[in-house]
Amino acid sequence: MSATQNEFSLIERFFSNTGKSRFPVKLSQGDDAAIVDVPSGKQLVMSVDTLISGVHFPEETSPADIAHKSLAVNLSDLAAMGATPAWFLLSITLPKFDETWLSEFSASLKAISNQYQIELIGGDTCRGPLSITIQITGLVNKNNYLDRRSAKLGDLILVSGKLGNAALGLAHLQQRITLPNDLIEPCVKALNRPIPRLELTEFLIRYASAAIDLSDGLVGDLRHILDQSQKGAVIRRDALPVNDWIRSHEAYDFALTGGDDFELCFTIPAEYKRVVDHWNKENPQCLLSSIGEITDGGYQMIGNHQTEDLNNWLGYQHFE
Amino acid sequence: MSATQNEFSLIERFFSNTGKSRFPVKLSQGDDAAIVDVPSGKQLVMSVDTLISGVHFPEETSPADIAHKSLAVNLSDLAAMGATPAWFLLSITLPKFDETWLSEFSASLKAISNQYQIELIGGDTCRGPLSITIQITGLVNKNNYLDRRSAKLGDLILVSGKLGNAALGLAHLQQRITLPNDLIEPCVKALNRPIPRLELTEFLIRYASAAIDLSDGLVGDLRHILDQSQKGAVIRRDALPVNDWIRSHEAYDFALTGGDDFELCFTIPAEYKRVVDHWNKENPQCLLSSIGEITDGGYQMIGNHQTEDLNNWLGYQHFE
Repeated sequence: MSATQNEFSLIERFFSNTGKSRFPVKLSQGDDAAIVDVPSGKQLVMSVDTLISGVHFPEETSPADIAHKSLAVNLSDLAAMGATPAWFLLSITLPKFDETWLSEFSASLKAISNQYQIELIGGDTCRGPLSITIQITGLVNKNNYLDRRSAKLGDLILVSGKLGNAALGLAHLQQRITLPNDLIEPCVKALNRPIPRLELTEFLIRYASAAIDLSDGLVGDLRHILDQSQKGAVIRRDALPVNDWIRSHEAYDFALTGGDDFELCFTIPAEYKRVVDHWNKENPQCLLSSIGEITDGGYQMIGNHQTEDLNNWLGYQHFE
Repeated sequence: MSATQNEFSLIERFFSNTGKSRFPVKLSQGDDAAIVDVPSGKQLVMSVDTLISGVHFPEETSPADIAHKSLAVNLSDLAAMGATPAWFLLSITLPKFDETWLSEFSASLKAISNQYQIELIGGDTCRGPLSITIQITGLVNKNNYLDRRSAKLGDLILVSGKLGNAALGLAHLQQRITLPNDLIEPCVKALNRPIPRLELTEFLIRYASAAIDLSDGLVGDLRHILDQSQKGAVIRRDALPVNDWIRSHEAYDFALTGGDDFELCFTIPAEYKRVVDHWNKENPQCLLSSIGEITDGGYQMIGNHQTEDLNNWLGYQHFE
């Protein structure tokens, strides 16, 4: 942590009071490195994600939204692995020291780190174009994690929540589309305040065979599961959980390739279909939709009275 | 790891073959997160450092030097804690896909990760102004680490290697000074290829009371030890391990505030003086210099026939 004297004061002042971890922290911010204890029988689950202004969020995004999203996308990686959040490190590059910006950023970071009981244990601060890198560590019981390589023939393919809202929110902010009033708030919120689906962790560890988080869009992300599991898939366009605007405009690209939804896509043996129904009855805030099945090979979507090949599929239209 | 399909191929292609860890890796790059095992009786030592082009290294620095330095400065944090390297995650932001640049960068990253037996277990790739963030994890035997808060009255203050060479190298490249020919290569090398002093780990764990790595310059970095240990210090200017150019030009600022040396500064009880002499006889490549003592309070340098107060000290001259 090669910060200057000023940077140290800055880190200590704005980031000293985030959420507490369920797991012990021996030495936190303010040394060359942090020291933490790992309970016996656990494995570490580690990931890193960088968010760059103008690339991963619009330049006019509020500091509170940037803080939320930076941690949420990392928590989403843990959710996809079936892990419990433990600690994170933050490297933040700022064009200038801006006290208001930093207070809003750190208040929001504190809120989401409290909500998910994850603790900031160290960091680095630099001057430069705005970007945030978070490295996150979670824990799983030994060998009790999800990966992308274990989807089986006949498994159901499920996704959580709605698909395409984040991409709709971005398109609306960029004035590429005009959303009806009642969809603006949920879609912009889906873009700026993604919900890491950690509520699914126990369910996934118990029932799922493979999982991934939807950062780049369903078609590309599900393909990672298929490639690594050496399987194929058929998905049904009409089963995609999309809002009425997407359905009435047949604008399925937002859901299929839009990205940034940070919902989970996972596979479960077909015999667990009733468990899914039960989950949906108990968890209306995190509905699961069965959108297709794992097959022996190929990658297809049924819809629009025809079957489309999703290998090398470029989408219906391009948004850039 | 929200990389696109192309970015995934890029990561896999250039970064699939780095050094191997001494410690088990269950699931590496290519999933939402990596999974690793922690041997029982160990604690994690975690740090993150970002290097930005034009800030932490001159823009014309070679990709091989950038890769070396990015990992070396993180390894140096582990060295200062007395930790053994285990795994790292890499987030790299590049202005464009440049195959030659990436091959040279990854070959150098492979070399240094092999040398220190540390394994790349995941990462993220973005497009933007060149910067590299590495999060590093090392291991220590439980509670057997060094921090900055345990320097004791009467302890000797030691530094490894030479101080000021990296700052001289930078000043030479920026044509602010003209170095004699025989100093150009060692000084530019000190800047671009810092040596993480992991060879000192066992020595430090056994004898040192506090330690820090010298990233920002001796005066500021030693102050962190004094602040956190609630002690003072006297250092002797004539005892600073500097080259003849610094001594003959009385350009001690390069050693005192120059930064980027990534040598270690640590304290040991005075009774271990003979152990230091023995170390120096056995390890001519990593000489230790005793530059002063820990006192009850104050922060002073004796030299130039006078005593100077290092609290609020701004150096003899400013190089910017």
